[in-house]
Amino acid sequence: MSDKPDKINRQFRLAAHPVGQIKASDFAYREEPVPTPKAGEVLVRTIYLSLDPTNRIWMSEMDQYMPPVKIGEVMRGINLGVVEASENPRFQPGDLVSGLLGWQDYAIAEGETGIVLNKLPQPLLCPLSAYLGPLGLTGWTAYFGLLDVGQPKAGETVVVSAAAGAVGSIVGQIAKIKGCRVVGIAGSDEKCRWITEELGFDAAINYRTTANLVEAIAAACPNGIDLYFDNVGGQILDAVLTQVNLFARISLCGLISMYNATEPVPGPYNYGQILMKRVRVQGFIVTDYVNRLPEAISAIAQWMKSGQIKYAEDIVEGLENAPKAVLKLFDGSNTGKLIVKVSPEPR
Amino acid sequence: MSDKPDKINRQFRLAAHPVGQIKASDFAYREEPVPTPKAGEVLVRTIYLSLDPTNRIWMSEMDQYMPPVKIGEVMRGINLGVVEASENPRFQPGDLVSGLLGWQDYAIAEGETGIVLNKLPQPLLCPLSAYLGPLGLTGWTAYFGLLDVGQPKAGETVVVSAAAGAVGSIVGQIAKIKGCRVVGIAGSDEKCRWITEELGFDAAINYRTTANLVEAIAAACPNGIDLYFDNVGGQILDAVLTQVNLFARISLCGLISMYNATEPVPGPYNYGQILMKRVRVQGFIVTDYVNRLPEAISAIAQWMKSGQIKYAEDIVEGLENAPKAVLKLFDGSNTGKLIVKVSPEPR
Repeated sequence: MSDKPDKINRQFRLAAHPVGQIKASDFAYREEPVPTPKAGEVLVRTIYLSLDPTNRIWMSEMDQYMPPVKIGEVMRGINLGVVEASENPRFQPGDLVSGLLGWQDYAIAEGETGIVLNKLPQPLLCPLSAYLGPLGLTGWTAYFGLLDVGQPKAGETVVVSAAAGAVGSIVGQIAKIKGCRVVGIAGSDEKCRWITEELGFDAAINYRTTANLVEAIAAACPNGIDLYFDNVGGQILDAVLTQVNLFARISLCGLISMYNATEPVPGPYNYGQILMKRVRVQGFIVTDYVNRLPEAISAIAQWMKSGQIKYAEDIVEGLENAPKAVLKLFDGSNTGKLIVKVSPEPR
Repeated sequence: MSDKPDKINRQFRLAAHPVGQIKASDFAYREEPVPTPKAGEVLVRTIYLSLDPTNRIWMSEMDQYMPPVKIGEVMRGINLGVVEASENPRFQPGDLVSGLLGWQDYAIAEGETGIVLNKLPQPLLCPLSAYLGPLGLTGWTAYFGLLDVGQPKAGETVVVSAAAGAVGSIVGQIAKIKGCRVVGIAGSDEKCRWITEELGFDAAINYRTTANLVEAIAAACPNGIDLYFDNVGGQILDAVLTQVNLFARISLCGLISMYNATEPVPGPYNYGQILMKRVRVQGFIVTDYVNRLPEAISAIAQWMKSGQIKYAEDIVEGLENAPKAVLKLFDGSNTGKLIVKVSPEPR
């Protein structure tokens, strides 16, 4: 790295476990020298940083599916980057990679770091940033959560919440491909228009302006609900439970409505419907499917190519804006995949 | 029926949908003439009336798995009885039968009544009343809810609530037969002694006297919980959720803690654990397994014969005591199967 002595590595480290909404003061900004890879290690420059609702889980101390981020650690994040220097024979400068590189300009991965890199194919199957969207964790989450956990059958009614989000928008399109009636629940009329007019959902409900959510869902699902892909929990889950059919499935992907809570949040008041209607609720995390990723990648890439899966991105410029941008996931102001562009793509 | 003109048919009909706990005034006592079977019909004399937590569901107007009992109808109940007169070639006087005959001395079944009778085998495999317990709906509920819904594996830890009840006590014994560590949660020291000392549970927790339920469950389940057979919901479910292992299963059989509620009852505060630990929650009703009953009957009868399944009964004498006796299911004062003896068994 002798040719880059003057570069700095900007970082956001966790300064505090958030109480309620994430605040700027929950992060500490640091500038460090760009590190040098040791034997077995790889230096990666971050190009894109993925912002996801699960970031809020990682920042908390709650019992969760990975160790929480500790105070003082670089904030965990899913990134796409390019190898700048490598002391590892599996990677060459110029390789495009994905990995948990964090909220920083540069990261050391592989070797003893515990950070594993996945090399992207050359040539790419789609624009680079889509490897955080339909061809990345969010697309795989949609694929396995809908098809494997939810087991939709043609003709069934599928409801998805956060339907204009990175995961929800893919869920709905795959459910359409599988012959289901698809109803999306989203937080603005613009989002509702996008998922119905552009993505082909059969109906959409703006939960913020709908006076009676139960009635709106009942009207949009005249044959009841067979599969609910839940990203949010809370009142929407309760409303959905009033309309589930016998033997319905709930793919439990996320509980955004709970992540910022400062008081204990009750589960659904209509929990009894799980018994009465013999519902199956199944929590899942996409990392459980790591051995089956090629199946998802192959299917989704094909659907993107055929135009059956479209996607939207909300790209925020500059790592410095990450702490503010992440709030968009919780105030409902982003559509599609929320990404921070940290540095330019290689030509 | 000309030989029995002087007999009366005592009945309890639903007078009101209960608010909170069942009250005597929710039933109306009636005396009617003993009915005469028409072509295709059968007159049955009730010997035993099963009292079950689900009676409370039937009495309410909530969305449920069968039509609620209507005001003025004979209270629904599961009974064992003997055929006294038959205009149906499939049944002869003296046949022992089970069916939804209701809270009354005599019932007309088959034909156009919608009430189906199941003929018990001759000779019986066990004492008659056990056809309401291990060899009846409660035993089948335990069998399918544990084995089919819960999928226990040898060496796993199984927790069951209402563990000294008709279903829970069988669940725990079957789980022991399958090589699991079994922890029962019950409401008295006497019940805890019974399930550990007599039934072979590995540990028992008296939830009424335990200061910290989470700690008690953690201590009794040093390897976490792989399968929870839930009869009660509420705070016990919440405590269990703090200790579930990755990919745990919850067989949702009942929610006794909610049935008498007069205000909306929240679901578990630890609902998020279903996501974090990728738990599967599956509601079920034993009637979904009607085609597989011979499998359960054969297995349970064998385990009863070998002494691996024991059972207890709480038999209350006299139909007139049914409205008071049903309360025992909700105040925790019964152990094993609660049954009203309505009339003598045939010699």
